[in-house]
Amino acid sequence: MPNAHDGLVTLPEIEDAAARIAPAVVRTPLVPFPRVTPAVLIKPESLQPTGAFKLRGAYAAISADLEQARGHGVVAHSSGNHGSAVAYAAAQLGVRAVVVVPRNAAKPKTDAIAHYGAKLVSVEPTLAARVTAMNELARAHGYLPVPPFDDRRVIAGQGTIGLEIVADCPAEDPVVLVPVSGGGLISGIATAVKMLRPEATVIGVEPELAADARESLLRGERVAWAASDVQRTVADALRSERVGELTFTHIRELVSGIVTVTEQEILDTIARLAREARLVAEPGGAVAVAACLFRDGELPAGRQRVAVLSGGNIDPALLASVLATV
Amino acid sequence: MPNAHDGLVTLPEIEDAAARIAPAVVRTPLVPFPRVTPAVLIKPESLQPTGAFKLRGAYAAISADLEQARGHGVVAHSSGNHGSAVAYAAAQLGVRAVVVVPRNAAKPKTDAIAHYGAKLVSVEPTLAARVTAMNELARAHGYLPVPPFDDRRVIAGQGTIGLEIVADCPAEDPVVLVPVSGGGLISGIATAVKMLRPEATVIGVEPELAADARESLLRGERVAWAASDVQRTVADALRSERVGELTFTHIRELVSGIVTVTEQEILDTIARLAREARLVAEPGGAVAVAACLFRDGELPAGRQRVAVLSGGNIDPALLASVLATV
Repeated sequence: MPNAHDGLVTLPEIEDAAARIAPAVVRTPLVPFPRVTPAVLIKPESLQPTGAFKLRGAYAAISADLEQARGHGVVAHSSGNHGSAVAYAAAQLGVRAVVVVPRNAAKPKTDAIAHYGAKLVSVEPTLAARVTAMNELARAHGYLPVPPFDDRRVIAGQGTIGLEIVADCPAEDPVVLVPVSGGGLISGIATAVKMLRPEATVIGVEPELAADARESLLRGERVAWAASDVQRTVADALRSERVGELTFTHIRELVSGIVTVTEQEILDTIARLAREARLVAEPGGAVAVAACLFRDGELPAGRQRVAVLSGGNIDPALLASVLATV
Repeated sequence: MPNAHDGLVTLPEIEDAAARIAPAVVRTPLVPFPRVTPAVLIKPESLQPTGAFKLRGAYAAISADLEQARGHGVVAHSSGNHGSAVAYAAAQLGVRAVVVVPRNAAKPKTDAIAHYGAKLVSVEPTLAARVTAMNELARAHGYLPVPPFDDRRVIAGQGTIGLEIVADCPAEDPVVLVPVSGGGLISGIATAVKMLRPEATVIGVEPELAADARESLLRGERVAWAASDVQRTVADALRSERVGELTFTHIRELVSGIVTVTEQEILDTIARLAREARLVAEPGGAVAVAACLFRDGELPAGRQRVAVLSGGNIDPALLASVLATV
């Protein structure tokens, strides 16, 4: 059982995931942010079919245990990008999926999950209720659970982004910037990048208003922020209260630091990405690019920046309003 | 001299161009348009550093005659995507560039050209004045002229998109949809696609309000529309009055038909691309995708659609307004 051991995810696990997910994910290029100095290369995971990197981890996890998944189905809990990723990946693999969502989930998001044929189960809008419902469904029906981040198969799937960055970035010592919420994305990317390019530096980025990972890394132990606090940021994809156990192990080992950005910097970055780089970003997806635009002084000088744009599922009204105001 | 012969551009010319331009252009992926039936794969050339496919042809042309270009400089005429492509490509190749622009060119566009270090020469806002100025500058200073479309080196550069479509599209007989203005883009793509996949079908797309290529293809001879007529479309990148001689030879030989779309269909497509596919398109860039969304009944049934999204340099106020209204 790959979940039985607690060490870092390995490069072969990521390479295996890359081979499994290749038919379903977009091989995203590195896109230069035009006319920005120092130069920034963007990895636009917003171009995945579900609009976010989450498809890589979900597909990697389901395809890793395809026999159980095909025989019994899969279950996940999420009101957002992970839920639609699991629904989409399951549909591609011919697997039944159940997604546990909070009763107050936004309708466009539950519509997307339902569109891919997943069954929705609504529960009270607390993390505890969602996890409980997921575990009960898994026990009762034998469903394969697909956790959002604290899982080696999921981390390995997100790590395929790191393989692609290394393949496409000519620099030997890039500074790779990655949004942090539960930590699955940065754990996978940091593993791939640091194994293949030891001179690279991997830096996490969080909103100032949801900087639990930064505080955890500084203290050397996982810190939880109050749900009411992390709800304040516009970056709805980055509102997790605490990084995972397994992801924190990766972050401590492989990530050099975490930079924070303000709400205004996030919104300005969304506008600049659309206007100048022709890319649609959601607030949580834009934070690593925001760090390049607004916090360059906090980054190692004189080295190539690579920023992961992790998702593009923004409310069109918000995108229209930031475009109109800048 | 490659310009001395009039036959179709050849596959080796396109493959040579691909090798020359690789360091400067983004290798764009095919991106599925989510939840659209029948399925559409989008080739997002909006992600090029200058925001449009034009960079491929400009870079291919300058790099084909690098000795003359380095010794004397290059000259082009354009107020839009071709001008910034020539300026950017010249800067990358260490070549001086002069771009002839009409006096009434939009400031953001001339700013982009100037940003890359090209010298701007303003002339009266007529095509004749621009061409005359370009030719005089070329004669007086030995500048290498870089025409916008009716040129084998430029067509070969745009044809690299066709090579990439063939490499990435699993279907043996895709229907490839391409915006048409002067015809350089579709000539190059059709050459590559039809040479490598004879069962593929290449179809051009124009705005109803600037459908001179459609009329030319139906009549079997090049027809010019009045400048005042083609100015009516919102698709400013597609306002050329007539296709080129060399491009028309390619279109007659290799293109199966030309579909037109309305102004409202173009605007609706821009909104749907941003909301559903996380891509920013300019009006001219969106027409091939619009044909898939709104004119599917005019396309060969039951085959994979591939639509080239040729550029993303849209006025942010227009993008905001279409996002707010759909």
